[in-house]
Amino acid sequence: MKLLLLGFGNIGRRLAEILADRASYPGLDGLGVSVVGITTGSRGAAVDPAGLDLGRVLAELGARGRFGEGYPAAATLTSEEALRDLDYDVAVEMTPLDIAGRGAAAIGHVRTALERGRHVVTCNKGPLAWAWRPLRDLAREKGVAFLYETTVMDGAPVFNLAQRCLRGNTLLRIEGILNSTTNFVLCEMERGLSLAAAVAGAQRLGVAEADPATDLDGWDAAVKVSALANVLLDAELPPEAVERESLSAVTPQRIEDALTREHRLKVVCEAFRTASQGGTQVIGRVRVREVPVSDPFALVEGTGSILRLTMDILGSIVLTEEDPDLSTTAYGVVSDLFRLQEELDSPGQ
Amino acid sequence: MKLLLLGFGNIGRRLAEILADRASYPGLDGLGVSVVGITTGSRGAAVDPAGLDLGRVLAELGARGRFGEGYPAAATLTSEEALRDLDYDVAVEMTPLDIAGRGAAAIGHVRTALERGRHVVTCNKGPLAWAWRPLRDLAREKGVAFLYETTVMDGAPVFNLAQRCLRGNTLLRIEGILNSTTNFVLCEMERGLSLAAAVAGAQRLGVAEADPATDLDGWDAAVKVSALANVLLDAELPPEAVERESLSAVTPQRIEDALTREHRLKVVCEAFRTASQGGTQVIGRVRVREVPVSDPFALVEGTGSILRLTMDILGSIVLTEEDPDLSTTAYGVVSDLFRLQEELDSPGQ
Repeated sequence: MKLLLLGFGNIGRRLAEILADRASYPGLDGLGVSVVGITTGSRGAAVDPAGLDLGRVLAELGARGRFGEGYPAAATLTSEEALRDLDYDVAVEMTPLDIAGRGAAAIGHVRTALERGRHVVTCNKGPLAWAWRPLRDLAREKGVAFLYETTVMDGAPVFNLAQRCLRGNTLLRIEGILNSTTNFVLCEMERGLSLAAAVAGAQRLGVAEADPATDLDGWDAAVKVSALANVLLDAELPPEAVERESLSAVTPQRIEDALTREHRLKVVCEAFRTASQGGTQVIGRVRVREVPVSDPFALVEGTGSILRLTMDILGSIVLTEEDPDLSTTAYGVVSDLFRLQEELDSPGQ
Repeated sequence: MKLLLLGFGNIGRRLAEILADRASYPGLDGLGVSVVGITTGSRGAAVDPAGLDLGRVLAELGARGRFGEGYPAAATLTSEEALRDLDYDVAVEMTPLDIAGRGAAAIGHVRTALERGRHVVTCNKGPLAWAWRPLRDLAREKGVAFLYETTVMDGAPVFNLAQRCLRGNTLLRIEGILNSTTNFVLCEMERGLSLAAAVAGAQRLGVAEADPATDLDGWDAAVKVSALANVLLDAELPPEAVERESLSAVTPQRIEDALTREHRLKVVCEAFRTASQGGTQVIGRVRVREVPVSDPFALVEGTGSILRLTMDILGSIVLTEEDPDLSTTAYGVVSDLFRLQEELDSPGQ
């Protein structure tokens, strides 16, 4: 499968490193992929219809900070041009989430690829949060795959688990700790730091963005709630309809009081179906909740994450991702590529 | 798909209740199954080539404690006879685990069904622990499915997760708390009970068998370690080769000392690959381990269970099953039936 990578930040580079170093990962043996194009917002592009030498790509980017000299013909190629003009099988959308723009650029990328009858793997959750149904329907109409394992909990198998391993159940409720910045900040505040000091520490470690508001105000978490609710609960729930509680209002006293009661404060994402006029509707929430220390949610430290799925037959199971790193996230793309390859090998699944 | 159920204890009856009450479980809509036969060790058998009325089966068994009057023709039918003579698509092996006999009866059932070219779903872990490779190879040779989700962690998606959602990774290590009797007993001993009193309490609640030695001495856990190691680490590791540590040697003092150090004693199952002469070998262990309270393993209470999978790319994930009941276990069969149906719908997967 020929891949076109849109965006080449930390995850894209780690993915390229893994694919360039396949001898170290025997499990990748059966995966037949080559990267025929990489586009970026500000660092140029690289194209090779015969498959890019990823070691060389990474070296050039490391040395010069941008593509260009090594790939002059592609220097000014945009993502939209690449999506329209290159010969690829799978577009891998890895551009940054744009909440203010309601994911428009990423949604456009996905749509362009699907319209051309190409498969799509997205790490960007905007398309799931703001355009799930039309994109899913478009993929079906074109007979191509639209996959998204990396969008929630890095590469942990959230969607694969829910869609492929729990058949027969009706999913009743989803709960999770899914935003690492707020979780990291809360853990630091429990150690006595002020909110400002905890945020500054998170920024130094690269856990928080230069502008931390998107995380602190629950927007990133709300987009994840939308993605989960839309895909797994068949909702039409944009992030703007998800109730949010900002971490900015949390005082050290509130954290301390919770600890005294053997509880920890956590930013908990929730989505569940509830009866409403003439049917059911899906509620999404991002709340600062007191979690008892006997709950696995209370053990999630720093950048870890956790998800509880509650079902009518099986009951509830909890999936925890421990100490994620860039490989954990990049694996989400690998997982989608394997799933795509399986679906191509046995259509109808 | 026509099912033949071998054994009809708690799990079988709960499965029958779920299948008899499909209107309550909308997720089962797509599952096309009927039960054409049920055999038991001491309570007779029931057969109806057109599909048994499961409500009537359950009522008869509830009223009389055995089949017979309602199904006179089948009264003396054995499992082996049913496997050889009835017209079924899937044999569901649900007889009790026989450790002393090294699973021979259940292995025989599975083999008879596979030899006839019938699919097999087993809840009995004996076939995986003592005969995995020959049975797997026989199923491949006959072109039929051999599935076993219920054998470890009830119906939680252990094998489905590892086999279908983590592709591309090399699995390095498996750890779990997988035996509910010993976990229940340890939790009670932390509350001050003696081993004998804790075991008696577990027996009263139906968590421990009349003869608790199989659980206390780690045999049940060792069989699960074998099943996981054989299937997921491609080992040839019978339960006899799994190191075991008995709970009988654990004193209240040892439990108390661990708590003082903010640790809990847990019976932890482990399987991992290690370098050995001219290659690698798989080690399996059942150990009484001190687990720090910050580890999700420390939160597993009573009959809950937990599994950690450590991989080369993704890192480690943890799957927790919370408050399982009979439906949780019966779901494992439902899960296998869905997987089987999917495989029949798209062969080659």
